[in-house]
Amino acid sequence: MTDHHRRPVPLAKAYRLLNHGPTVLVSAAHEGARNIMAAAWSVPIDFEPPKVAVVLDKSTWTRKLLEQSGTFVMQVPVVTQADLVETVGSVSGLALEEAGGGDKFARYGLQSFPGEVVDAPLLEGCVAWLECRLIPEPHNQERYDLFLGEVVAAYADERVFKDGHWDFSGHDELRTLHHIAGGHFLVIGDGVKGVELPPL
Amino acid sequence: MTDHHRRPVPLAKAYRLLNHGPTVLVSAAHEGARNIMAAAWSVPIDFEPPKVAVVLDKSTWTRKLLEQSGTFVMQVPVVTQADLVETVGSVSGLALEEAGGGDKFARYGLQSFPGEVVDAPLLEGCVAWLECRLIPEPHNQERYDLFLGEVVAAYADERVFKDGHWDFSGHDELRTLHHIAGGHFLVIGDGVKGVELPPL
Repeated sequence: MTDHHRRPVPLAKAYRLLNHGPTVLVSAAHEGARNIMAAAWSVPIDFEPPKVAVVLDKSTWTRKLLEQSGTFVMQVPVVTQADLVETVGSVSGLALEEAGGGDKFARYGLQSFPGEVVDAPLLEGCVAWLECRLIPEPHNQERYDLFLGEVVAAYADERVFKDGHWDFSGHDELRTLHHIAGGHFLVIGDGVKGVELPPL
Repeated sequence: MTDHHRRPVPLAKAYRLLNHGPTVLVSAAHEGARNIMAAAWSVPIDFEPPKVAVVLDKSTWTRKLLEQSGTFVMQVPVVTQADLVETVGSVSGLALEEAGGGDKFARYGLQSFPGEVVDAPLLEGCVAWLECRLIPEPHNQERYDLFLGEVVAAYADERVFKDGHWDFSGHDELRTLHHIAGGHFLVIGDGVKGVELPPL
């Protein structure tokens, strides 16, 4: 399957893909091995060049692949992928690999496509993708499980991200997921505009 | 005004107040001066003791107060506060102070209440509050404008946060805000459950 709605996002606008706080999927690959996991704890940390931060537990295989390759992908899944997000967030890719049963992509029939810059696979069916290069910060990584990355390429589904803004109206099936705990997610709603108040 | 719906949240569940990625307001106080600002870039980074990270630009007065006091509060505003969030995110507290017109609380009639542990004011009308102690990390602060904190007390509005889970159904006026850019917010929606998939 090819996603005909995927369009490049200018790097200066890439932070907006994560600004509203969606749960993301993090993928990484190294020397033929690949993995993908869910991460509720990610955040933009700079505009241009765009930078991101994500917490990756020491037990995760994605973290090891990312540390080895120095690159990763953050992608934004949608409400119809809730089971998939819960699954790749619960199942250990390393355990699968050690059991010889193939990786998560094979086991769950996940379709992916290659990035333009990094080796990690990009998952079909998401609404945003950010290819990232690791910014090595060993103290943050070891002490806080916190990984920083520079976004080097970004894309979004033009049906819901247009002119630098999300608008999910008319596309309920493409709304982003926001994890609470234990597979319980909130789904993003519609827009509202805030305007500056006059002083009292 | 006293908020009769505010209840303590066990520290082990405090990360769930931010897990779904809401835009927050950060407040800080030092030697009689106080400020509050909007921050879209915040994220939990640990469970217990709960830790958070937030990006605070070098130009902000809240950052200076936080650096001096070593404490801050993160609070989660709601859709009916969209104009207030945009306002405290646009107006410079330092400029107000230098102009002698009083701080943002006075200028916009913001009602606050004291924390149990820290000096920063807690804003009435929000649905969650996290009192935090700065974890000094000068490299992160200087290079990435990234501030880490340990949550030392947490509260939430029991109408929408119960038993460790958000549920906004029946309380549209208390739904959280998720900033895109330029005062455009998305409002959080309802829940969905993800369940682990069987292998192919």
